[in-house]
Amino acid sequence: MRANRIVTLTSDFGLDDPFVGVVKGVILTINPEANIIDLNHGVASHDIREAAFTIGMNYRFFPERTVHVVIVDPGVGSRRRPILVVTERYYFVGPDNGVFSMIFEREKRDLKVVHITADQYFLKVNSATFQGRDVFAPAAAWLTRGKDCRMFGETINDFVTLDLPVPVRMKGTLRGEIIHIDKFGNAMTNICLPDIVDLTGRRHDGTLRIFLRDRVVPLKKYYGEAKSATLHALVNSSECLELFVNRAHAAKKFKISVGDPVEIKVTA
Amino acid sequence: MRANRIVTLTSDFGLDDPFVGVVKGVILTINPEANIIDLNHGVASHDIREAAFTIGMNYRFFPERTVHVVIVDPGVGSRRRPILVVTERYYFVGPDNGVFSMIFEREKRDLKVVHITADQYFLKVNSATFQGRDVFAPAAAWLTRGKDCRMFGETINDFVTLDLPVPVRMKGTLRGEIIHIDKFGNAMTNICLPDIVDLTGRRHDGTLRIFLRDRVVPLKKYYGEAKSATLHALVNSSECLELFVNRAHAAKKFKISVGDPVEIKVTA
Amino acid sequence: MRANRIVTLTSDFGLDDPFVGVVKGVILTINPEANIIDLNHGVASHDIREAAFTIGMNYRFFPERTVHVVIVDPGVGSRRRPILVVTERYYFVGPDNGVFSMIFEREKRDLKVVHITADQYFLKVNSATFQGRDVFAPAAAWLTRGKDCRMFGETINDFVTLDLPVPVRMKGTLRGEIIHIDKFGNAMTNICLPDIVDLTGRRHDGTLRIFLRDRVVPLKKYYGEAKSATLHALVNSSECLELFVNRAHAAKKFKISVGDPVEIKVTA
Repeated sequence: MRANRIVTLTSDFGLDDPFVGVVKGVILTINPEANIIDLNHGVASHDIREAAFTIGMNYRFFPERTVHVVIVDPGVGSRRRPILVVTERYYFVGPDNGVFSMIFEREKRDLKVVHITADQYFLKVNSATFQGRDVFAPAAAWLTRGKDCRMFGETINDFVTLDLPVPVRMKGTLRGEIIHIDKFGNAMTNICLPDIVDLTGRRHDGTLRIFLRDRVVPLKKYYGEAKSATLHALVNSSECLELFVNRAHAAKKFKISVGDPVEIKVTA
Repeated sequence: MRANRIVTLTSDFGLDDPFVGVVKGVILTINPEANIIDLNHGVASHDIREAAFTIGMNYRFFPERTVHVVIVDPGVGSRRRPILVVTERYYFVGPDNGVFSMIFEREKRDLKVVHITADQYFLKVNSATFQGRDVFAPAAAWLTRGKDCRMFGETINDFVTLDLPVPVRMKGTLRGEIIHIDKFGNAMTNICLPDIVDLTGRRHDGTLRIFLRDRVVPLKKYYGEAKSATLHALVNSSECLELFVNRAHAAKKFKISVGDPVEIKVTA
Repeated sequence: MRANRIVTLTSDFGLDDPFVGVVKGVILTINPEANIIDLNHGVASHDIREAAFTIGMNYRFFPERTVHVVIVDPGVGSRRRPILVVTERYYFVGPDNGVFSMIFEREKRDLKVVHITADQYFLKVNSATFQGRDVFAPAAAWLTRGKDCRMFGETINDFVTLDLPVPVRMKGTLRGEIIHIDKFGNAMTNICLPDIVDLTGRRHDGTLRIFLRDRVVPLKKYYGEAKSATLHALVNSSECLELFVNRAHAAKKFKISVGDPVEIKVTA
């Protein structure tokens, strides 16, 4: 497998500094034909878990052989390793700090992790504070030029994996939590369609009851189906349970935060 | 007419979530040669009118045969239709909720609106909450690959048009309103150059008097011509009347909001 | 030297309005093959000095013959001149208001500045408020199509240069100042590696003492090396001294602002 010329970037850099632009400059200096797409630079500063969800939920929407770069890297400059992850259909480049935990889980059948050590590919100015620029960007660029992944270093097996929160099943109840509040105020949970199917033994339907704290949250199919301005739920475009208020900011209105517990009960 | 490979995106997604990145991934999966440009993702959440102004004021600055995608879509998942709008020089893809109202008005001589129903072009995972990803992005991508617009569905004539606010003429007075506050605090009105020419019978000049509430607002040609830090007006780069304070945030300083009335009087 | 097809954009436009998108549309209308990269649109409104640092610190990370456009232009529409700056390896397009001051300093050996007057290259709608769209974008686009820089106007020597703050040396002390607070709250100074080498007569080491007001700030090599949540310093990826708190927002926590003095003393 050779990489295509598409590189995605995910980071906690925001867009008010030149960090993202500089990473793109470095990539284009090595491969002027690279096509660089911002996946998301709005990850909270240093939030490895949010980065893991961001790339884990969305990498599959890109063409095969895309190179996904993730730069959420509070340990930059320390001994944490830069890694290249190769799966059946994609490449991933970033720090060995757990940002690829969902990739490791979902792609475990066909997974190779390389410790990037081949410093002939690094930027000559190799700073201890911006390896996104000096190591990850060049590695991604060289991949898009067809460089074989074995050229970057040795395969490792002791890569870092986060314990991402997974829903807990207790009899007829599934207890998950809020993992992301989006720009609209919608609150996504880690309870996804397979979990619900598993709970109910069939696709989700009206026999489910959803709870945020003690509040019962009615299930809808789409936002506009909720006619009142109160809290509702739906299965969102990532196929995960999401709490929302139609045309309003649910998280603010109902004081919902990342980490808040959400429960589903089957009333068979 | 065949689309070129440029696709613009306008949405209320903001840039702190992966929504925009995922839309780009879907487009590139269908056409890796597409060139995707962000027109603006800062439209206020669910604000169809702001989206209508954004695309209506700016589509003409792009190359002929560009595909403009607008995803401000509070009715996603309901029976509101996805549409493709074909004008003499451009394509537009988005929801049938009025976001293309200015296009309909400006391009009425040569206008075709297609209800997008050809679901062979949709993303296989067709969610009820993110048709920007599942319907609009694929339709735009297929257009850039040269797909004929008749392949997407039937022509319709009952598309939704918003009543956008237009200035009202009363004798020698034109009464308009603020339609947008930009990042600098400049407040754009819906009173544009043709309206002013029509009012005065000639191009705007010193015989006009501009009012915000009871305040007289002097007319200038450019920002730096206003030497004091008080409220001034000029005809901006969209050829519409705009209120500003030189090097300061007019909207905050003078408590100006979208919807506030602005009047022009001719003192012949 | 002919420009390559890469154009970078730096501005104070932010990303909540269509300004940046429209500039890209104008460039692509002239050269559909241009590859436009956002360097940074988060410069503070009208802040010419911040723009000068942004482009001056980062232009070198892009491929040779890139065209760098800077649109921080409070004097737009006045008699301030549009200019094209040609250096040994890069092109720069923007207003003659000092935004290229660091370029003038760093590239003085091989520098040519052209007053852009050739209005056949301007957008036909040449407004007095958006010359980024009407003058700079077209000039950049024509450069990427191989237009010779002599076609744009006459060479000038009286271009505007800002007095950017430089560190002041007094015996064994170097007094600089904070020039930028980034998204993470890290506070970059204008004291850079050559200044430090010059002060110490060798590369920076433990014999330096760094002061913010009366506080001694310990020097580290990378962020994670600071084990306590107090203020530390390091030489950052731009090779300048930076104050930080590991995984926290130093500027908020220690009330650091742009302009605050920072001192280095050698304790030989």
